[in-house]
Amino acid sequence: MQVGLVGLGKMGGNMGERLREAGHTVVGYDTDPELSDSESLTAMVEQIGTPPRVVWVMVPDTAVDTVIDELAGVLGEGDVIIDGGNSRWIHDAPRARRLAERGIEYLDCGVSGGVWGITQGYALMVGGDEGTVAKAQPIFDSLKPAGEFGFVHAGEHGAGHFAKMVHNGIEYAIMQAYAEGWELLEAAGHVRSVRETFNSWREGSVIKSWLLDLAVNALNEDEHLDRLAGYAEDSGEGRWTVEAALDLAVPVPAISSALFARFASRQDQAPAMKMIAAMRNQFGGHTVRDVAAGPEHVEAAPGEEPAHPAEQ
Amino acid sequence: MQVGLVGLGKMGGNMGERLREAGHTVVGYDTDPELSDSESLTAMVEQIGTPPRVVWVMVPDTAVDTVIDELAGVLGEGDVIIDGGNSRWIHDAPRARRLAERGIEYLDCGVSGGVWGITQGYALMVGGDEGTVAKAQPIFDSLKPAGEFGFVHAGEHGAGHFAKMVHNGIEYAIMQAYAEGWELLEAAGHVRSVRETFNSWREGSVIKSWLLDLAVNALNEDEHLDRLAGYAEDSGEGRWTVEAALDLAVPVPAISSALFARFASRQDQAPAMKMIAAMRNQFGGHTVRDVAAGPEHVEAAPGEEPAHPAEQ
Amino acid sequence: MQVGLVGLGKMGGNMGERLREAGHTVVGYDTDPELSDSESLTAMVEQIGTPPRVVWVMVPDTAVDTVIDELAGVLGEGDVIIDGGNSRWIHDAPRARRLAERGIEYLDCGVSGGVWGITQGYALMVGGDEGTVAKAQPIFDSLKPAGEFGFVHAGEHGAGHFAKMVHNGIEYAIMQAYAEGWELLEAAGHVRSVRETFNSWREGSVIKSWLLDLAVNALNEDEHLDRLAGYAEDSGEGRWTVEAALDLAVPVPAISSALFARFASRQDQAPAMKMIAAMRNQFGGHTVRDVAAGPEHVEAAPGEEPAHPAEQ
Amino acid sequence: MQVGLVGLGKMGGNMGERLREAGHTVVGYDTDPELSDSESLTAMVEQIGTPPRVVWVMVPDTAVDTVIDELAGVLGEGDVIIDGGNSRWIHDAPRARRLAERGIEYLDCGVSGGVWGITQGYALMVGGDEGTVAKAQPIFDSLKPAGEFGFVHAGEHGAGHFAKMVHNGIEYAIMQAYAEGWELLEAAGHVRSVRETFNSWREGSVIKSWLLDLAVNALNEDEHLDRLAGYAEDSGEGRWTVEAALDLAVPVPAISSALFARFASRQDQAPAMKMIAAMRNQFGGHTVRDVAAGPEHVEAAPGEEPAHPAEQ
Repeated sequence: MQVGLVGLGKMGGNMGERLREAGHTVVGYDTDPELSDSESLTAMVEQIGTPPRVVWVMVPDTAVDTVIDELAGVLGEGDVIIDGGNSRWIHDAPRARRLAERGIEYLDCGVSGGVWGITQGYALMVGGDEGTVAKAQPIFDSLKPAGEFGFVHAGEHGAGHFAKMVHNGIEYAIMQAYAEGWELLEAAGHVRSVRETFNSWREGSVIKSWLLDLAVNALNEDEHLDRLAGYAEDSGEGRWTVEAALDLAVPVPAISSALFARFASRQDQAPAMKMIAAMRNQFGGHTVRDVAAGPEHVEAAPGEEPAHPAEQ
Repeated sequence: MQVGLVGLGKMGGNMGERLREAGHTVVGYDTDPELSDSESLTAMVEQIGTPPRVVWVMVPDTAVDTVIDELAGVLGEGDVIIDGGNSRWIHDAPRARRLAERGIEYLDCGVSGGVWGITQGYALMVGGDEGTVAKAQPIFDSLKPAGEFGFVHAGEHGAGHFAKMVHNGIEYAIMQAYAEGWELLEAAGHVRSVRETFNSWREGSVIKSWLLDLAVNALNEDEHLDRLAGYAEDSGEGRWTVEAALDLAVPVPAISSALFARFASRQDQAPAMKMIAAMRNQFGGHTVRDVAAGPEHVEAAPGEEPAHPAEQ
Repeated sequence: MQVGLVGLGKMGGNMGERLREAGHTVVGYDTDPELSDSESLTAMVEQIGTPPRVVWVMVPDTAVDTVIDELAGVLGEGDVIIDGGNSRWIHDAPRARRLAERGIEYLDCGVSGGVWGITQGYALMVGGDEGTVAKAQPIFDSLKPAGEFGFVHAGEHGAGHFAKMVHNGIEYAIMQAYAEGWELLEAAGHVRSVRETFNSWREGSVIKSWLLDLAVNALNEDEHLDRLAGYAEDSGEGRWTVEAALDLAVPVPAISSALFARFASRQDQAPAMKMIAAMRNQFGGHTVRDVAAGPEHVEAAPGEEPAHPAEQ
Repeated sequence: MQVGLVGLGKMGGNMGERLREAGHTVVGYDTDPELSDSESLTAMVEQIGTPPRVVWVMVPDTAVDTVIDELAGVLGEGDVIIDGGNSRWIHDAPRARRLAERGIEYLDCGVSGGVWGITQGYALMVGGDEGTVAKAQPIFDSLKPAGEFGFVHAGEHGAGHFAKMVHNGIEYAIMQAYAEGWELLEAAGHVRSVRETFNSWREGSVIKSWLLDLAVNALNEDEHLDRLAGYAEDSGEGRWTVEAALDLAVPVPAISSALFARFASRQDQAPAMKMIAAMRNQFGGHTVRDVAAGPEHVEAAPGEEPAHPAEQ
């Protein structure tokens, strides 16, 4: 079928390619003219052909509403907009209602798979009406992996992004699990090769997974990850997952731990730890590290003998 | 080759069967005469045949030393004992030294795979000397999965069990990750079927894994897990992992979270929460729940109007 | 001075009494006619006397806007409304703007002290304009403890409730700290009397605090807290604190731990732990506890010998 | 009475001074001749005078056994050794038995109070036999604060250090609580002065405590703690507390969180976060930070458009 595709970045570009290879006609639009097949959103819609038209939007969370509002002006009754980005699920139902006033149908679709999706297929979690899902099903069928898994019509508007949000929360904690284990094995020095140990777990073990395969890929390129900084971004879904858990009184200690570890990794001098050091100094005359002195310098508090018992 | 196998429970029995199917001659011993091929450990050793003899021990952590001491009396120079149980790694090096005094060689072997190992092969992490590993390699080759993964000679004595210990620590946190996500999806009610959502993630998604497959199996049998209690045991390796991390000052918030969640699940009335309730009552005259009154009864403190602001 | 007081529950009633003892004239209103000094909010406002009038609102979060809207209809230019409840800080600025359209001034005031405030004074954290604070300062001076502490003009509208929210987040984690230590001492059995040990810490030790004093009070009444259920409510501020931290990428592992422990304490059968048990059963044929069987019954999976190694 | 005092560092020196002011005769020994009153441990013991002699040992954990072994050679029947350091409680019972063979009595005494103890008195938690405690009671009475609190005979040998260990575990979590709250208030910028807000909590509020007083002292010296590094040591008791909790299956999420935050604060490049970054890069082509590039440089992965959705 014919599909408009807004946002031709890494994810959008790959998805367009997978769709074309499956025989669909894809008309792409991107603000970068070198990537774009059309001059404007309007031009893109005109190029798609006869209604009902399907437009897949693959842009950052912050740009989704702008794009959708512009599309709403040029699409019409029975056309379908699919938001495939990592949007916050609470925005989906209002967005669907707004579009419904013009007769435009809306689906939210969580997409997982990263750079591997172009060859292996993308996991898709879709929210919206049954009839609208049916209209777009050929697109979903081409994007998803071959076989019985990788697609779910999760529920009403927002259910797709909600499922994707929780998926990413789980992902954060699983990544943290491997990362903690890796750090511990490296720190202990009891195994000859952490890389080989991780590699051995890829079959037969209870913790075999695709993320483990990826971890081994990374270790094969840089065995002790010396070329990477201990710095990890987070992109919203982890925070939203914890917020949703707070609303529902669901304990999520592992997911939140994973998130807080990322937050801390981005702090050069952790403010909370300054306060810990300050209190220790107040009651114990403990050695504290002067921020200006760099990592190697520890300044003893007046009268401090470092060899004597601390924290009394 | 010929191998003695001590402990014919679920794990040991299955492993013996896999070894036999691979053409090895297995002489098993178990304290349960119905399972056992021989009347005693001594009889088992005699049945194995000509040295060097290999005996695989698959008994609970607490029984390992008793079994090994008895085996040490009947085995001799060049024979090999392999401890395949979930033993604590710090006991391996002393055990190896003790056996070396009699010329008996020792390997520690962490084993993963559970009830699926009999058909899919077991992941094996081995600690000990190169030469001893070579002697037992035909056994390892038959137990491990086909293909390039599933076996690692992790390092010196103890390295095998250390690797297995960390493996299980990681496993705890990964299981916790899926469990938190599952609980959140169930609590939120935004997806039509949590089971189908989990199922969809089995291909294409970043969090596809064998544990996810198993989770879906479980949901296929009992969609909302109504037949299970919210109660989870732990079997040592998780605790040892956190202890090892403490020794090395490695932060393991996700692994420890997973462990603490299991601890808490086994408490009928969490003592710490009694103390929280007690303090709340002291400063706020808060409503507290009387232990005898059951889950539905909340007794207001004298003068308490539940509708008025709490925790002030 | 003269002050209207809406909400004569435990907190409001006590505060009114403290104000009266300090010489102020308090006209109270409550939906409970037995507590109320006036028949309606309107009647209460009329009774207060000449403008500018100050009305302190001490009602549940959910009722604040209703009360304030009704007050807005009867108060006028230069009058002051103070919200002393545990309201969410993000509502304060919009509320202040809405009232400002009618010339009514607004302050948000976080209040701490619980049932002890009537004698010891309340800690007050105030948000709003300098001039408005000055108008109400006699009220604040009478409510706060004697001495130099216990009052802060925290900042603009919302700053008072924000400060109180963080205060409560800290409180959650401090309570959790004592609770964990108490549980550990009770479980270990190494000290003859946990109550006496806690009591000894009340002077000289680094962890002496008012919450410790309250904990000892509770232990003096019920040494092992046998009469309490291990069940703790939370009242919003803890969750909002974690949400604020998520927005700002501030790691708050201790505060969130405290909150999650309360969530878990309220679950009869923790859903996440059902999932852990389900996965353990899938890979290990582990013993799982049947929900119907009660706490003492553990059903072995088919073929399971409980004495054999688990989690392999 | 007369008392020998080994270790005249910050804690030992202060304690000696407090004892002298109370009228005791203190003979001190330190490896630093400038601090020492005697040339050797033997000389110190001879100077103490007639038996039964009491020797207080205030040296680092690692030196305790050396000092005690040397003292055991010069002390005799009925003499008393008190270990006042932050020693690990599991060593106390064996130590007591060893000394008992020579008729020497032993007490373990956890001491809290830091540099403030000299004037305010020290909180003391003592383990050992009733009769031995009675012999040393005049020393304890002079070291403890005036009033009814600050001293407990906690139980048998080891109970004193166990109580102190848990005390410090609680302390870690309380400090973390204030530190998280402080960081959040600083990050949010909603209160005009975090220092003044903290200061206001010192009376009337539920979280008033001595640690809060100390925090305010620190903020009064350096309002935003600009002069401190975000780096916090830990000195053993926190780790031992978590280990004890693991042994007893007691969940201690807040205490362990506090400990892990300190561990992380001492890592320049968190290894676990390198692994997170590595996995993110593998599946997402995410931007990762090159360790050599410094905190400001973020290198885009090939083909990455940072504005497009991440973690898909």
